[in-house]
Amino acid sequence: MPNDQISQLDKIRHSTAHLLAHAVKELYPDTVLTIGPPTKDGFFYDFLPKTNFRDEDLPKITQRMKEIAERDLALTHKQIPKAEARKIYKDNPFKLELIDLIPGDTVGLAQQGDFDDLCKGGHVKSTGQLKNFKLLHISGSYWRADRDGQPLQRITGTAFATPKELRMYEKRVEEAQKYDHRKLGKQLDLFSFVQEGVGFPFFHAKGQRVVQLLKDDLRATLNKQNYNEIATPIMLSDDLWKQSGHYAHYKDNMFLSEIDEKSYAIRPMNCPGAILTYKERPRSYRELPLKLSEFGLVHRYELSGVLHGLFRVRSFTQDDGHIFCMPNQVEDEVLDTIKAIEKTLKKFGFNNITVALSTKPDNAMGSDAAWESAILSLKNALDRSDLKYVIQEGEGAFYGPKIEFGIEDSMGRSWQCSTVQLDFCNPKNFDLSYIAPSGQKEQPVMIHRAIYGSMERFFGILLEHFKGNLPFWLAPIQVKLLTITDDQKDYAQKIMHQLQEHNIRVAMDESSDPISGKIKTAQLEKVPWMLVMGQKEMDNNTITLRYRNGKQEFGLSLQDVLAKTKKYNDEYII
Amino acid sequence: MPNDQISQLDKIRHSTAHLLAHAVKELYPDTVLTIGPPTKDGFFYDFLPKTNFRDEDLPKITQRMKEIAERDLALTHKQIPKAEARKIYKDNPFKLELIDLIPGDTVGLAQQGDFDDLCKGGHVKSTGQLKNFKLLHISGSYWRADRDGQPLQRITGTAFATPKELRMYEKRVEEAQKYDHRKLGKQLDLFSFVQEGVGFPFFHAKGQRVVQLLKDDLRATLNKQNYNEIATPIMLSDDLWKQSGHYAHYKDNMFLSEIDEKSYAIRPMNCPGAILTYKERPRSYRELPLKLSEFGLVHRYELSGVLHGLFRVRSFTQDDGHIFCMPNQVEDEVLDTIKAIEKTLKKFGFNNITVALSTKPDNAMGSDAAWESAILSLKNALDRSDLKYVIQEGEGAFYGPKIEFGIEDSMGRSWQCSTVQLDFCNPKNFDLSYIAPSGQKEQPVMIHRAIYGSMERFFGILLEHFKGNLPFWLAPIQVKLLTITDDQKDYAQKIMHQLQEHNIRVAMDESSDPISGKIKTAQLEKVPWMLVMGQKEMDNNTITLRYRNGKQEFGLSLQDVLAKTKKYNDEYII
Repeated sequence: MPNDQISQLDKIRHSTAHLLAHAVKELYPDTVLTIGPPTKDGFFYDFLPKTNFRDEDLPKITQRMKEIAERDLALTHKQIPKAEARKIYKDNPFKLELIDLIPGDTVGLAQQGDFDDLCKGGHVKSTGQLKNFKLLHISGSYWRADRDGQPLQRITGTAFATPKELRMYEKRVEEAQKYDHRKLGKQLDLFSFVQEGVGFPFFHAKGQRVVQLLKDDLRATLNKQNYNEIATPIMLSDDLWKQSGHYAHYKDNMFLSEIDEKSYAIRPMNCPGAILTYKERPRSYRELPLKLSEFGLVHRYELSGVLHGLFRVRSFTQDDGHIFCMPNQVEDEVLDTIKAIEKTLKKFGFNNITVALSTKPDNAMGSDAAWESAILSLKNALDRSDLKYVIQEGEGAFYGPKIEFGIEDSMGRSWQCSTVQLDFCNPKNFDLSYIAPSGQKEQPVMIHRAIYGSMERFFGILLEHFKGNLPFWLAPIQVKLLTITDDQKDYAQKIMHQLQEHNIRVAMDESSDPISGKIKTAQLEKVPWMLVMGQKEMDNNTITLRYRNGKQEFGLSLQDVLAKTKKYNDEYII
Repeated sequence: MPNDQISQLDKIRHSTAHLLAHAVKELYPDTVLTIGPPTKDGFFYDFLPKTNFRDEDLPKITQRMKEIAERDLALTHKQIPKAEARKIYKDNPFKLELIDLIPGDTVGLAQQGDFDDLCKGGHVKSTGQLKNFKLLHISGSYWRADRDGQPLQRITGTAFATPKELRMYEKRVEEAQKYDHRKLGKQLDLFSFVQEGVGFPFFHAKGQRVVQLLKDDLRATLNKQNYNEIATPIMLSDDLWKQSGHYAHYKDNMFLSEIDEKSYAIRPMNCPGAILTYKERPRSYRELPLKLSEFGLVHRYELSGVLHGLFRVRSFTQDDGHIFCMPNQVEDEVLDTIKAIEKTLKKFGFNNITVALSTKPDNAMGSDAAWESAILSLKNALDRSDLKYVIQEGEGAFYGPKIEFGIEDSMGRSWQCSTVQLDFCNPKNFDLSYIAPSGQKEQPVMIHRAIYGSMERFFGILLEHFKGNLPFWLAPIQVKLLTITDDQKDYAQKIMHQLQEHNIRVAMDESSDPISGKIKTAQLEKVPWMLVMGQKEMDNNTITLRYRNGKQEFGLSLQDVLAKTKKYNDEYII
């Protein structure tokens, strides 16, 4: 990769990774270095230390990095023969392995002062330019991400071009920590985890309510698009994953069990269920497009170290869709899917949707003609939609091109949730067919699509995005009734029943707290609306509506409140 | 068991089993006899034949049974010393094993003509009394139901006291076969099974819709009773089942998997999820009763030979409920549960509900006082309900008394679905507690309850009970629009959208079939209502409503139809 293609930010981050390794080498000379690339959010360096680093070591390392930066050492980079590199790194098995892996006869060597590192290049001019960095945390990793390989220690950090950008980053992180969905999940009694099921979420009543609401809302959208919701087994013969080609790559992430001496997979994806449903009887072109949706529970093994609240779990529900159609139907189906995605994401205020179309990779299966026609269909669908998109040349899966949708949350962070993926392979692997108008058997195209992606992860994103203040339509309790004294209890009961009749999710504060205490409790619960009722309200047959932001409306009738609930529900108002 | 406690019907059936064995011995002298008891629906006899019996052999065996009956042989029964019995059955290892198992020094021997059989008694006087019997089918079985044991062949039959009863039975069976839910499931496109997942149902769109409707209807009932719906993992450490005591008895029926070198169970029941949810934080008496419900997917190993459509599967969803309460709350909670059960079952026309209360068994855990008080609570709850009940002395589970609810379907068959089970053990095994008003830690009582039981099985029962004609509120398609010519398509579209606005599940017959063909198709699909629209209806802005039984109503307005849909939905009309 020529240097001029590396962004200035990546140069800073990559150079800061060298700076980190340099500092570690000076402080702990016995540490073995491995690799230290820039990342989307900063950089990391993986070490094999003599004694494990602890969080308390980070300030000392940071201090030494600053000292080396002040020395303002020039960063140089040159190509050297592999034989010479092997001599330099004769005691470092990782670097020796890397040297073998790099094609050609030479490798790059970066130097600053008496520190050197194997490196393909992309640096700032001198260490003096590295001023705005921060070490973040220490975690476990494995050499070449192979969990059967050598365990290493990773120090992660970030760096920016200006102090202002670093400060903004720190503020974002601070806010994200404050509204960490794991914290909110506990505070709002939404979900929990236990040691008897590492990575498997337990949804409490309020969390399960949110999941149900997310499902029901999407169901309504899919119904209008003539989807058929199916429910298929969560265990099936592992032969199916051998047939789909997943087994070879994915076996280590699959949970297996045995039935009648046959090996079964606890499904890591839902496709085989949809495929077998398609194959359940012969299909005619008249049935196409056949759109099967499933809220499919999947299980995937993940290292316990990478598990992270609802963001990374070992069991989750995908809002999966599989569309079986004729090639000439792809464009319309993809457009419909894009519309469903856009409509759904905008309900949560995700108005800044980024779209990337990934095209044919080097290892592609299927004919050039099929790829060209498929990519054209995807482009046409995107052109007919409201969304702007970029093209990621050669980034498609080997089995077909795909479109990925990114959203930006309220803290400026990007998330990838929705995807549309064309699949030329599985129709072939599973010998899918339909009877064409000609009477001949033809092979359908298969489109995989997800809108939320993982419902658990999407829920976690929503919690942080809304800082726990779920929109009215999605709040497990929408309205809480607070009486100033017990005298208004009957009045409040009557109003509660009316609201329940209209399917509003209500609760009454039955405590004997003063009204200020009741308001505080409801605010901690982040209930969207409080209906406050005192003697005055009761005498005038009115209600005071207090929003969770403190804003109040007085003298509302029950009809006013009901009309408002309908508006808030229908228009997805927060 | 003294003879006078055996019903006359059981005597007839048991004697007919002897008659069957006698005929088999005469026709196939090399056949080894094992056992042949009466059952709820008839009798069976398990044989080890020299050459396997085939269905074609049944008429020949039946003919010989009739001949032996005509011989009118007297049936005698006497006690003989075990030593003598061992001599008689020296070549029959099964009978020898039985002789060892029978307590005491003597065993019973039944004789008719030159045929004898080991038998504890309970016969008619002579074979001439055995006139109204029928052999039904041949199936595989195992000696002492041990699947690692000797495979046997079972011939199943039935017998009655009068020819009329036998005819009625045959008619019922014929009807049940005609409306076999497996047949209906295929015909109505509701569900299917595949060889890649033996015993795991695939719900097609229409079947999944019915399951969802059943869930949603129950959810509304449970909401009113302040249930908290949770969703817990379907895999958890098998330690939990060791702790609950299930593992020891139930291990062979559990699917296991491994995660991070720990053994996980794919849950065969949902209790541990509810228990861990209860334990998630300290509980106060103020939170009790805490009612947790879960539509919990469970997996249980069953021999492939006993799998039977949706009636017996390897994965199913229980509408599980766990109530954690104080002892003095049991009565009210059980009464509420009984009411929910009664209300739910009656929606399907199951008006004849039988109830049995099972009391303390010999191997009971827990103190006498706890049992007495619990049984009293259950009795009081039952006495306060509308339902009559019988007491099954000593039939409770070792961990608590239970109430079982039976229903009778439209073909007169009985099914047990709903249960309420008290549990003294798990609160102890899992060290559950709550802070009582006194400030002391106390142990809650746990009530397990299910209303549908297995949703899959209940669905199967409903299909047969309604002969496929699901009630209006439960039909996947409620209304089908049929136009006499294409001229009425626009008119029909307008009406369809109006119905959809009111959440009615509608479909339009888009074919170019004549109206008679469209009606026939809708009838095969068992759609409750057809809305027929011709030129006359369009001109008058009316609709003809045709019910699936052929009855018609003419000249209805759209408002009439909408009012009727509401009535049919709300009142659970078929």
